[in-house]
Amino acid sequence: MRNIALKLMYVGTAYHGWQIQKNAVSVEETLEKCLSYVVGHPVKCTGAGRTDAGVHALAYIANFRTTSTIPCDRLPLAVNTRLPDDIVVTEAVEVSEGFNAISSCVKKEYTYRIYNSRSRNAFLVDRVWFYPYKELDVSIMQRAADCFVGTHDFAAVRSVGTDVKSTVRTVHWFDITRQGKTIECKVCANGFLYNMVRAMVGTVVYAAEGKFPPESVSDILEGRCRTDAGPTAPPGGLYMSRLWYDEPGLNKGAVE
Amino acid sequence: MRNIALKLMYVGTAYHGWQIQKNAVSVEETLEKCLSYVVGHPVKCTGAGRTDAGVHALAYIANFRTTSTIPCDRLPLAVNTRLPDDIVVTEAVEVSEGFNAISSCVKKEYTYRIYNSRSRNAFLVDRVWFYPYKELDVSIMQRAADCFVGTHDFAAVRSVGTDVKSTVRTVHWFDITRQGKTIECKVCANGFLYNMVRAMVGTVVYAAEGKFPPESVSDILEGRCRTDAGPTAPPGGLYMSRLWYDEPGLNKGAVE
Repeated sequence: MRNIALKLMYVGTAYHGWQIQKNAVSVEETLEKCLSYVVGHPVKCTGAGRTDAGVHALAYIANFRTTSTIPCDRLPLAVNTRLPDDIVVTEAVEVSEGFNAISSCVKKEYTYRIYNSRSRNAFLVDRVWFYPYKELDVSIMQRAADCFVGTHDFAAVRSVGTDVKSTVRTVHWFDITRQGKTIECKVCANGFLYNMVRAMVGTVVYAAEGKFPPESVSDILEGRCRTDAGPTAPPGGLYMSRLWYDEPGLNKGAVE
Repeated sequence: MRNIALKLMYVGTAYHGWQIQKNAVSVEETLEKCLSYVVGHPVKCTGAGRTDAGVHALAYIANFRTTSTIPCDRLPLAVNTRLPDDIVVTEAVEVSEGFNAISSCVKKEYTYRIYNSRSRNAFLVDRVWFYPYKELDVSIMQRAADCFVGTHDFAAVRSVGTDVKSTVRTVHWFDITRQGKTIECKVCANGFLYNMVRAMVGTVVYAAEGKFPPESVSDILEGRCRTDAGPTAPPGGLYMSRLWYDEPGLNKGAVE
């Protein structure tokens, strides 16, 4: 069987996240239906991560196995013709037999967008966290964000809901920049806990609101108590943005 | 009666254009309903132009008369609370008695966006003209665009459907730039005929496709025959982007 990795982009607004579930439309289910039709047999995809309801992907990797001989360069168009407009396959690459979009992933990056303006922007509905209350000081946010970088126990910034063996992860960077009214937070780690990025963003915004000193985020992390940290930021501002694999053909490692 | 100008932004996808019509939801009707509720009497708005179904506005001006004493700085929030998310009032300004959003408008600018990439972009559905067929040469498009600048009879690039006394207009600029995959066409004129910008964009794209030499657009204009020019580009790529008024309070003349 061939093992094929698909590079995807999707607007998550209409979906209950990536993963298949009962009584709700998921990106995975939508994609598998189209793929099954195109390759002529039932398809099961493995996705790079379980994005939540309303969360988007600028870049996402899913792999599936197939007996079809359809060339990889023809697969995107064939699938896109059947997919709804809010999901796009941008590339298909044949990968090694053992490749798995989630377990082969070396690190991934999420981007979180805050629209910090008194006025709403009609074009950014469900695509940013609209934050009109005050002008957020990015330098304070960055000082708080710096506390997350490195290897830590991230229990304080994860929601309960999934079983994991360990809550220790390594955050490679958490960079916060402002361009006009948009604040962009880029977080890269070797793995993420449930709602981790959204809780990290909620926490740095709390620091900018003066709820606690930015440097105290280190103590909050050490305390391992979810209620000490900031709230979970809304899903519409979150985008899976880059993925890294040790796999030839996947853009020399970084997919974006 | 106070005369109030509202600055708006809207995503046109869900609307049959600005103007009220039977059996279809318009931006005007949606806005007037909310305004009427807020000021406590029926409201009739005058808009800066009749944008078509699916056309957007980054900046738009509408004025209305009211007996209400509500302060202008409180009006946007009061109206936005009742408006759907795809229409936003960004500012309200009290204007002179004779001000009229359409007849007082000195010039306006539309921006047209083409997404020129082999792959669709899920985030830009209904917000650009997705053009995957070939890489468009912006320098050829600009040579064609230059033929439109100045005072001309624009009968060759208007759709029939509205009665106008004259088809002569003055185009102040028609600038085409590329940033990555997005081509942006900015057209400013003292007034626009029905579908004029979309036909102008369709014509410069035709020139880039080699359908006719870019300089021949001058002859096409002179010929006054719609079928000689290029097709009408789709509505989703079009945005009303800037407006100029000789009116104190409206951002020193340019509204954007």
